[in-house]
Amino acid sequence: MITLASDFGSPYPAAMKGVICSRSDARLVDVAHDLPRQDVRAAAFWLREVLPTFPPAVHLAVVDPGVGTDRAALVVEAGDHALVGPDNGVLLPAARELGDPTVHEIEIADPASATFHGRDVFAPAAAAVHGASAAELERTTRTAEWVDLRFPEATVGDGRATGEVLAVDGFGNAITNVPGRVAAERVGERLAVNGADAPVERTYAAVDAGERLVTVGSHGNVELAVNRGRGDEAFGVSVGDAATLAW
Amino acid sequence: MITLASDFGSPYPAAMKGVICSRSDARLVDVAHDLPRQDVRAAAFWLREVLPTFPPAVHLAVVDPGVGTDRAALVVEAGDHALVGPDNGVLLPAARELGDPTVHEIEIADPASATFHGRDVFAPAAAAVHGASAAELERTTRTAEWVDLRFPEATVGDGRATGEVLAVDGFGNAITNVPGRVAAERVGERLAVNGADAPVERTYAAVDAGERLVTVGSHGNVELAVNRGRGDEAFGVSVGDAATLAW
Amino acid sequence: MITLASDFGSPYPAAMKGVICSRSDARLVDVAHDLPRQDVRAAAFWLREVLPTFPPAVHLAVVDPGVGTDRAALVVEAGDHALVGPDNGVLLPAARELGDPTVHEIEIADPASATFHGRDVFAPAAAAVHGASAAELERTTRTAEWVDLRFPEATVGDGRATGEVLAVDGFGNAITNVPGRVAAERVGERLAVNGADAPVERTYAAVDAGERLVTVGSHGNVELAVNRGRGDEAFGVSVGDAATLAW
Repeated sequence: MITLASDFGSPYPAAMKGVICSRSDARLVDVAHDLPRQDVRAAAFWLREVLPTFPPAVHLAVVDPGVGTDRAALVVEAGDHALVGPDNGVLLPAARELGDPTVHEIEIADPASATFHGRDVFAPAAAAVHGASAAELERTTRTAEWVDLRFPEATVGDGRATGEVLAVDGFGNAITNVPGRVAAERVGERLAVNGADAPVERTYAAVDAGERLVTVGSHGNVELAVNRGRGDEAFGVSVGDAATLAW
Repeated sequence: MITLASDFGSPYPAAMKGVICSRSDARLVDVAHDLPRQDVRAAAFWLREVLPTFPPAVHLAVVDPGVGTDRAALVVEAGDHALVGPDNGVLLPAARELGDPTVHEIEIADPASATFHGRDVFAPAAAAVHGASAAELERTTRTAEWVDLRFPEATVGDGRATGEVLAVDGFGNAITNVPGRVAAERVGERLAVNGADAPVERTYAAVDAGERLVTVGSHGNVELAVNRGRGDEAFGVSVGDAATLAW
Repeated sequence: MITLASDFGSPYPAAMKGVICSRSDARLVDVAHDLPRQDVRAAAFWLREVLPTFPPAVHLAVVDPGVGTDRAALVVEAGDHALVGPDNGVLLPAARELGDPTVHEIEIADPASATFHGRDVFAPAAAAVHGASAAELERTTRTAEWVDLRFPEATVGDGRATGEVLAVDGFGNAITNVPGRVAAERVGERLAVNGADAPVERTYAAVDAGERLVTVGSHGNVELAVNRGRGDEAFGVSVGDAATLAW
């Protein structure tokens, strides 16, 4: 199985699929092709959320503002998975979630374009990795120095957790890096979120439509939400903003 | 085969796919993941339109504003199909179209989250139902009382049909519940739609670009349309509005 | 393999998938379903870009403003591929890229609707073509007169190339019909694009974020771009506008 993720929108992902289908019988599963454009950090966050649900697979992930520059192309082995994509950090948070990462660099032969390495470099590499043994992978790649990317950790203290908003999903839920237990232990109580009062609930529907709540999101972190509305707007936060919870 | 439908946008549907792929070799086919958000009625309408085109399959459908509350999780058997989703009516109109529905309730074991039952409850259930015999399904579920959802029927009388707009598609076509024969019998004539005059045509292109028409949509109902434009705007109607046709 | 492309948005493409799955075990791969609405020319452009990456397949492509009129339904054989869609030119540029096209007309039996031939005519035809031998195809179709569509060619002269913008992609890159060599031979130099100065670069990232550049796109043509921005806006061009490059 090869999963595909990118910020390409449409119809460029189909060119990656065509290239892979021309070289491999691997089953293809789309993860997302509307990842926030050229936002390596957001892509890394969502890959970390979603890829661990998959069985062992090759995961092609191309969010690549540096396409055509001398940034390297990587294959990261982690657990029984392999991730293929540009050397800008996008693969690493998911890889660490999947296992203990080993990072390889792929030789980039003269590609057909300098502007679409998804089609010309990474899709062929994903097809090759899918068919390759670990020994072949070792033999056809080289040692890499690579760009890392780590998400900050929240501080949980006495009466206060200090973190930040890592992502906002399409529903408007603001996903923080504050561990879910901070909310899980306080269901039914109220917290001050960046100074403003909000109830802690187990489900969105526990409050009236349009009302704010603090809950534990599906990723296991504290989420700032509105039942049938947008939490990011109601709490006035965007990605990277501080999220301080006091009780 | 397992089909997937939701209002999750992106990339959450990929987590459902990952979970299913981890538990089943079933072929996956996406129906839609941009169903109108948290709009159970719209989702029920579109599932009823699309699912009958499929061969026997398990249909996972998650539009679920009540996620995490005590609403039940259902498996609805209908014909040789099975539908899996929340107990809010979303599955029933499609199920009735596919056969004579039998409704089962799935035991919801302690899920990983209270906010993403698509991943933690319904995707595992769909994988299990896909592999299960009818006897196993019977044994592992329990008798259900369930929420129904039915679309209103139009009244066709002497010189007048009175119905409502059930859905508006992405082209702007306003799909009513008035039976298509009301228009099919009057192609080439003119009708008064909510008092305003419009021609009845077999195809969009029978009128000039930008012009209104009444036609029989692909669902077999009367549709209020504009050639290369939006019928909902031209006729001034939204979902739930009355659609009265007089001749 | 059957690939699917349309301007249907969602969820209508699922009805085509259901119909095909009911008649064929062919593997399905989505190309795009958000092709510019009812824009035959844009669809023809993107199909020409993407379909040649695929191995031999049946390509279903439905952008069809004339649905239900007497426009014919075509199967175009080209190389080891077959393209299925309406007779409005949309299939031809891709077909010529895939091989030497032979155009057949499909008999349109009385379809279930006059408004959704994607489901009622083209999807069944694609399933039939997928399973058919060349002889069967010959026997079940008839000689066609058909609508052609060709993209204009640019003129490259002494110190000047005169072409036009063929498409704008989702990133805002304005893709011209000027051959890529015009830019490839001048990397590091500057050109006047419709009179305005811009550098020629091999990669988007060669200029600062927000800055304009001329580059060779993945399609092999000159592209007017902005690093991390929209080239169409920065160069003030839309599809069909002239693109004159002087050096």
